[in-house]
Amino acid sequence: MEQKHQILLDTARRLIRRGAYPHLSKLLGKIHPADIAHLFRYLDLKEQRILFNLLEDAETSAYVLSELDHAVGALLLEQIDKETITEVLQEMPYDDAVDIIRNMPEELAEEILNIMQDEDSTEIEQLLQYDEDTAGGIMATEIFSLREDMRVREAIEALQQAQDAEMVFYVYVTDDYGHLVGVLSLRQLLTVAPDTHLKDIMTRDVIRVATDTDQEEVAHLVARYNILAIPVVDEHNKLMGIVTVDDVIDVLREEATDDIFKMAGTREEELLYGFQAFKIARLRLPWLITNLFGGVITGYLMWMFKATLEQIIALVTFVPVITGMGGNVGGQSATIVVRGFATGRIDFGTLRQVFFKELRVGVIMGAVCGLVVGVVALIWHGNPYLGLVVGLAMVSAMSVAASTGVLAPSFFKKIGVDPAIASSPFVQTANDITGILIYFGTATIFLQYLR
Amino acid sequence: MEQKHQILLDTARRLIRRGAYPHLSKLLGKIHPADIAHLFRYLDLKEQRILFNLLEDAETSAYVLSELDHAVGALLLEQIDKETITEVLQEMPYDDAVDIIRNMPEELAEEILNIMQDEDSTEIEQLLQYDEDTAGGIMATEIFSLREDMRVREAIEALQQAQDAEMVFYVYVTDDYGHLVGVLSLRQLLTVAPDTHLKDIMTRDVIRVATDTDQEEVAHLVARYNILAIPVVDEHNKLMGIVTVDDVIDVLREEATDDIFKMAGTREEELLYGFQAFKIARLRLPWLITNLFGGVITGYLMWMFKATLEQIIALVTFVPVITGMGGNVGGQSATIVVRGFATGRIDFGTLRQVFFKELRVGVIMGAVCGLVVGVVALIWHGNPYLGLVVGLAMVSAMSVAASTGVLAPSFFKKIGVDPAIASSPFVQTANDITGILIYFGTATIFLQYLR
Repeated sequence: MEQKHQILLDTARRLIRRGAYPHLSKLLGKIHPADIAHLFRYLDLKEQRILFNLLEDAETSAYVLSELDHAVGALLLEQIDKETITEVLQEMPYDDAVDIIRNMPEELAEEILNIMQDEDSTEIEQLLQYDEDTAGGIMATEIFSLREDMRVREAIEALQQAQDAEMVFYVYVTDDYGHLVGVLSLRQLLTVAPDTHLKDIMTRDVIRVATDTDQEEVAHLVARYNILAIPVVDEHNKLMGIVTVDDVIDVLREEATDDIFKMAGTREEELLYGFQAFKIARLRLPWLITNLFGGVITGYLMWMFKATLEQIIALVTFVPVITGMGGNVGGQSATIVVRGFATGRIDFGTLRQVFFKELRVGVIMGAVCGLVVGVVALIWHGNPYLGLVVGLAMVSAMSVAASTGVLAPSFFKKIGVDPAIASSPFVQTANDITGILIYFGTATIFLQYLR
Repeated sequence: MEQKHQILLDTARRLIRRGAYPHLSKLLGKIHPADIAHLFRYLDLKEQRILFNLLEDAETSAYVLSELDHAVGALLLEQIDKETITEVLQEMPYDDAVDIIRNMPEELAEEILNIMQDEDSTEIEQLLQYDEDTAGGIMATEIFSLREDMRVREAIEALQQAQDAEMVFYVYVTDDYGHLVGVLSLRQLLTVAPDTHLKDIMTRDVIRVATDTDQEEVAHLVARYNILAIPVVDEHNKLMGIVTVDDVIDVLREEATDDIFKMAGTREEELLYGFQAFKIARLRLPWLITNLFGGVITGYLMWMFKATLEQIIALVTFVPVITGMGGNVGGQSATIVVRGFATGRIDFGTLRQVFFKELRVGVIMGAVCGLVVGVVALIWHGNPYLGLVVGLAMVSAMSVAASTGVLAPSFFKKIGVDPAIASSPFVQTANDITGILIYFGTATIFLQYLR
């Protein structure tokens, strides 16, 4: 499978380079739209533009766009004429169309909504009201729902006629006012007598979310209950849409990538910038500059111990290892906590336990590393007191680092700042500072034995 | 929803503490098994054991176990008698039962396979042949498949009688020898004439995987094609099982957590150890010790510049900021590449482009940070040459760091080592070393102007 994809990718790139567009167009006609969409993820924007313009019909374009990042989708559409844009958008599920429109320049978006058929633009304008990261922002509105007083026979007939509904596997049941009152599986419909009323066989306890529920919570619920779709209701329990499991997969992936990127001090957004170095640098710099000032503060503290340093120049040789190890241990604890918050494994109820666990782990690892580095110092500089100072500083620095690694993300979580992005510079600076203070502090105390 | 869960968790903890087991048992009887399973994730092993023993019937126990980590599942079962274990395992889908048996002590596993009914133990022993991380290891074997010469009417009847099959939404079609030849959706069955043959309406181009396909690839395919299940075939195209989307979600989550943990120098495994500090420390230490020796080497290199250092003690104040920033920039590039490999966004074909992009980004960010830190050095120590040396060292260190950040994970990927775990110590040490060499090298060249 992956080999097939590699061959396809290489071929597409070669044809683009050669400008062999008719060939390329023929090739695209032969492959599954999902494979075309997958191909796009490996190309840069310029190549994507060329390929996108070669897609035969609005239906394929719509499919490919709904699989791509919506910001990229908007960029690909901007270059073509407004009538074609409108045509493609109308082929897409409303939720994907809305996300692309959100990413377009406002003026263009308005023009397109004007060109669209009234029915479509009303629906889209309504969806635009919801926040992008909520159930309302990701739900499909093409739902298949039936009234509770319908009979099974009628339900099956209705199902046979339904065309638009996105991936039907559950039938949602509503009352006379459109309120969600139950759910049925397709299979249930097949296994009961044809003149049974839906309300007599439906499950009444439906797992549902509100339009303003955060998309991550929606994803966690779908994952927890192993369901294929979750209905979305408004504040009056009126059925507004469904979120399907394929959207949930996208949310979970996005969330994981986002967390990983944030911990490294950047954002998933940078993937949209392709190879535009300046834009990417601008995205990463604020976090780096924060870290930079942390490093300068650490340096300043060392400067305060100038007198000690001047006497025992050997002390300097262990500065990188002490700040480095503090950073590593703090990073480990912070990773456990940040990921724990994200997956729901850690909450403020268990935080105390987690804190003491990480502290214990930090002390144990600090003892081992302290011993190792102490012995290294003893052998290298031939001074047992230097070994003692370095070893002690290592244990303390690593224990403190493990604690800050838990405390910093918890603090940021508590005050409503994303712990994934805020923790690292803070943890690193705090650890560098405590490491240096402990190290040079101990060294100053033992100064007479170090000479 | 989350609030409900919090209340439940607090109540359960309180009742466990008080030893109010009859109350607890009553409470458990009232909640959805998925919520019970979710609750387990927040409890430590001792609490989990108490709760698990209070579950009323084998069915609920089986449900809870299949949702938990299988290593934890094995631990929970070990404490109860063998007949009950067998009963619970027989209530579970084969794939989950197999995973739990894998995690049991060998002796116990064998005894249990002996107690089981022949049919079940044969099936399980067969599944045990497959590697845990492959399609064979995660597939469900309770598949709903029909023969291609069946008529739609018969298919619907068969569907009405099927009980065991896991989450039916596709009907897989096989030939006389059990080879996979097509697929149908439930909905398709409802919309055609009852005496049509399945082979006349089925889709013949079925996306499938082999039993030894890696689970991550399986997950990526399901995500790419937005399907709810993927059939698994053996080398002769015989249908062996299916992997459903709920398993795919678990694989994707596991994979993301695993990558995040590995980048921080630990493994997801540590989640199984709960609060056992020694076991966790042992898991994290190898990576830390590797980093420690990297730090010592850096220190050793500084020692070689002892003469320079002794003359200009101010140089030492910028050591933490130069090694720290190198580590940060290298970490950013490495994160982009490691995650890129994992999500399939980066491959060896685009690596060159990625390398030069990261290098450009590194140079730009290095120029900015070098300027900032150079000005700081100038103002602080009042020496323009020191500013120049620090600034130059910063630009070079950051550019080199960005390059190593791309090269190290690519190298490890190429030689078949997991880049997520191997990159960080390597990147960090390489950056520290180049940073220090460039810094003190430049300083030694400009030595006469620094005094």
